[in-house]
Amino acid sequence: MASNPSYSKCVEACQECATTCLANVVAMLGKESKNACPRCCLECAAICTLCVHAMTIDAKFASDYCRLCAEVCQWCAEECAAHDHDHCQKCAEACRRCAEAGQSVAA
Amino acid sequence: MASNPSYSKCVEACQECATTCLANVVAMLGKESKNACPRCCLECAAICTLCVHAMTIDAKFASDYCRLCAEVCQWCAEECAAHDHDHCQKCAEACRRCAEAGQSVAA
Amino acid sequence: MASNPSYSKCVEACQECATTCLANVVAMLGKESKNACPRCCLECAAICTLCVHAMTIDAKFASDYCRLCAEVCQWCAEECAAHDHDHCQKCAEACRRCAEAGQSVAA
Amino acid sequence: MASNPSYSKCVEACQECATTCLANVVAMLGKESKNACPRCCLECAAICTLCVHAMTIDAKFASDYCRLCAEVCQWCAEECAAHDHDHCQKCAEACRRCAEAGQSVAA
Repeated sequence: MASNPSYSKCVEACQECATTCLANVVAMLGKESKNACPRCCLECAAICTLCVHAMTIDAKFASDYCRLCAEVCQWCAEECAAHDHDHCQKCAEACRRCAEAGQSVAA
Repeated sequence: MASNPSYSKCVEACQECATTCLANVVAMLGKESKNACPRCCLECAAICTLCVHAMTIDAKFASDYCRLCAEVCQWCAEECAAHDHDHCQKCAEACRRCAEAGQSVAA
Repeated sequence: MASNPSYSKCVEACQECATTCLANVVAMLGKESKNACPRCCLECAAICTLCVHAMTIDAKFASDYCRLCAEVCQWCAEECAAHDHDHCQKCAEACRRCAEAGQSVAA
Repeated sequence: MASNPSYSKCVEACQECATTCLANVVAMLGKESKNACPRCCLECAAICTLCVHAMTIDAKFASDYCRLCAEVCQWCAEECAAHDHDHCQKCAEACRRCAEAGQSVAA
C-alpha cells in the first residue's frame, strides 16, 4: 500500500521486477554470459527497490527515481532478452513492464 | 517471483507489510504517540524487506529471518493496534498477516 | 570496499549521510516540524543507501544515481538546517558533505 | 552515526562487510565456484545492511539481528576462505571481523 494511490501500479511492477531480477542473478551464477546480464539485474533490482520505497513515502523526487529506473529497466530488458534461458526471458518481460510503469509515473 | 515457489505467499505478505509500515511512518510524522508506533513500523519495514530479499534468493537462513520477522511483526501489530488512526489499524492488520506468513515459513 | 576505488570517498559520505539521516528520523519522531524534516531524511537515507550499493557494484548508472542523490542531499540539508536541534544541524552537515561528494562523482 | 554509540564499531564492520561482500558477488560473476560463494556473499550483504539500519534506529531487536548476522558472516567467511582469489580472501576477512563485532553486540 503506497501513500499515494496513483503509484500503486508502478509499485507492483517495481516489486515484481526487483524480485525477478534478483532471482535471475542467482539463476545465472556459474553460467557464462557474454553481456551485462546478470550484472544489470543486480543493479535493476536495487533501483526498483528504491522506487518502491520512494513511492511508498510519497517522496519529493519519486518521479525522478522512476524516470531513471525506467531507463535501467530498458537496458536490463535488452541484456536479458539476449539470453535463451527461461529465467532471463522472464526477467526481460518483468523489466519491460516495469520500464513502462516507470515512464508513466515519470510523465 | 521468488526462486522458491513455497515462499510466494510470505513474499507477498512481507512486501505488503513493508510498504504499509513505511506509509504508516510517514502518516504518523508530527502526530503524538504514547507507544512504539511508528518507530516499530520503521523497524518492521526493514526486516520485511530483508525477508523479501532472502526468500527471493532462496537464502540459507531464510527461515531464521522469517522467524525473527514474525516476532517483530507481532510486536508492531500490537503497538499499531493501540492507535485509533485508520492507517495504524491497517498497519496492524498487515503486520498480523505477515506474522502468520512468517511463522509458516519458519515452521 | 567499492569495486571502483574512485568512488571510495563518495561511498563513505553516502554511508555517513544515510545513517545520520535515519537517526534523525528517529530523533524527530514526536517533535513538531514546520518543514520537510524529517520526511526528507527518510528519503535521503534511501537514495544514499542505493548509491552505496550502486558504487559498490560499479553500476552502469552510478553517476546518474549520485547526481540525483546530490540534489536530494542539498534539499535535505536546507530543510534540516532550519531546525535548531543538534541532531538536525549534524544531519544538515552530513547532507552537505554528501551533496559535494555526489556532485564530484556525477561530474 | 548510529543513535546508540555502543553500536558504532559494529555499524562500521557491517558497512565494510556489506560492500566487500557485494563487490565479491560482482567479482565472482562468470567464475566457477564449487561452494556457496558468491551466493553467500549476496545473502551476507543483505543482513549486514539490515543490521546497519537496525542499529542506526536503535531497533528493539537489534541484538537479535546482529546475532543472526554473526552466524551468516561466519558461514560466508568459511565459504569465501576456500577460494584463492584475492577478492574472496578479503571478503572472508571482512566477514570474520563482522562476525566478531556482531557477537559482541549480541552478547
